[in-house]
Amino acid sequence: MRITTVGLDADDTLWHNEGIFRFTQDRFLALMAHLVEPEVLMARLREVEKRNLRLYGYGVKGFTLSMIETAMELTGNEAPSRLIAEILAAGREMLTHPVEPLPGVEQALAELSQDYRLVLITKGDLLHQEQKLAASGLGELFVAVEIVSEKDASTYERVFARHGTGAAQAAMCGNSMRSDILPALEAGAYAAHIPYELIWEHEVADAPKGHPRFAELASISDLPAWLRGLS
Amino acid sequence: MRITTVGLDADDTLWHNEGIFRFTQDRFLALMAHLVEPEVLMARLREVEKRNLRLYGYGVKGFTLSMIETAMELTGNEAPSRLIAEILAAGREMLTHPVEPLPGVEQALAELSQDYRLVLITKGDLLHQEQKLAASGLGELFVAVEIVSEKDASTYERVFARHGTGAAQAAMCGNSMRSDILPALEAGAYAAHIPYELIWEHEVADAPKGHPRFAELASISDLPAWLRGLS
Repeated sequence: MRITTVGLDADDTLWHNEGIFRFTQDRFLALMAHLVEPEVLMARLREVEKRNLRLYGYGVKGFTLSMIETAMELTGNEAPSRLIAEILAAGREMLTHPVEPLPGVEQALAELSQDYRLVLITKGDLLHQEQKLAASGLGELFVAVEIVSEKDASTYERVFARHGTGAAQAAMCGNSMRSDILPALEAGAYAAHIPYELIWEHEVADAPKGHPRFAELASISDLPAWLRGLS
Repeated sequence: MRITTVGLDADDTLWHNEGIFRFTQDRFLALMAHLVEPEVLMARLREVEKRNLRLYGYGVKGFTLSMIETAMELTGNEAPSRLIAEILAAGREMLTHPVEPLPGVEQALAELSQDYRLVLITKGDLLHQEQKLAASGLGELFVAVEIVSEKDASTYERVFARHGTGAAQAAMCGNSMRSDILPALEAGAYAAHIPYELIWEHEVADAPKGHPRFAELASISDLPAWLRGLS
């Protein structure tokens, strides 16, 4: 089977993301420390985020709104206004955070782009993801960028049909079992999981152990060799 | 010149949008009425929205964050917390507002879809625009949906190349001179302006009077006849 197209996740595959969310979350904990226990705050934030996901989707703006909502709920709508201003500022800083490719990314993509059509496939805020790609300097290496509201099997079928030669001749690579690996396999594509040191609870899922089209790689630097091995 | 592809804007072309923003804005004015003069509030909201546009992009989530930020700024970070909760609720209601096609839209699109490839081209929050399209029941009439962060000439060139036979054989239709008409003409496409009763200040621009590829139509019901006239 010849692979023609390689899909790549962006956040925590090409550049840091979850670390920035965690940093902001810690800042939120510190801001609220005199008002509520950290465990209570975290549990409520998770609950609010989960509840809002279907309305806000993925990304920094929804996360910022969910932090504000959590602060309101936990203080009986009596959160100090300074705190709200601080949360807004934290959200804005996430949106302007510098973007730097993870180790090995530039070299791996440069090599892959010689042999495959590279397609960036990511969730999140449309504008923010475009800005991060521009800031990363990696944009020229991709033949297409698909920013999607959800990553399920039909997403991968559609994207690999549009920008490649179908899912059966495509491989997806990313850090999320739930969003990058399982639905890509379901669509008929190959999939390589490259774990990142942190993972958002929402994205956790079991590995498809023993699946013939699946691989677990230690680093994106191992991706070219794995793909060569498939041909 | 044969037209093969018709691009359609979504908000205030296929369904109401600005009216919902205005309604929420009025609600915001009422919530803040005891704290600040309406003119002062509106001027500041415009300023904050404009400043945040490059960071938040278009859509309800950014607008909600900008309302909260405006309330904070005008009260020296002393906005009553109840008010913040009310703004959050107003934002959520915008995201769940029912979507109903404007008069004539369903019939015009059904007719157009017989003869042209219809492409929806819209700005705004990715997930929200997808949800509105699904709720409108119009999704099946489009061969493609492009939710974009900005509508400039290169956007139209790219979209009409991808989903049609290039901008020279395409027509764009929408309510915003600035976003739908001028950049589509610049890209080499035809463009039909269908005014909506309200327009966001940001989208206002002069009509390209006398432009050979431009038309001003009273209603989307006039679009099929105008397109037939071009062939």
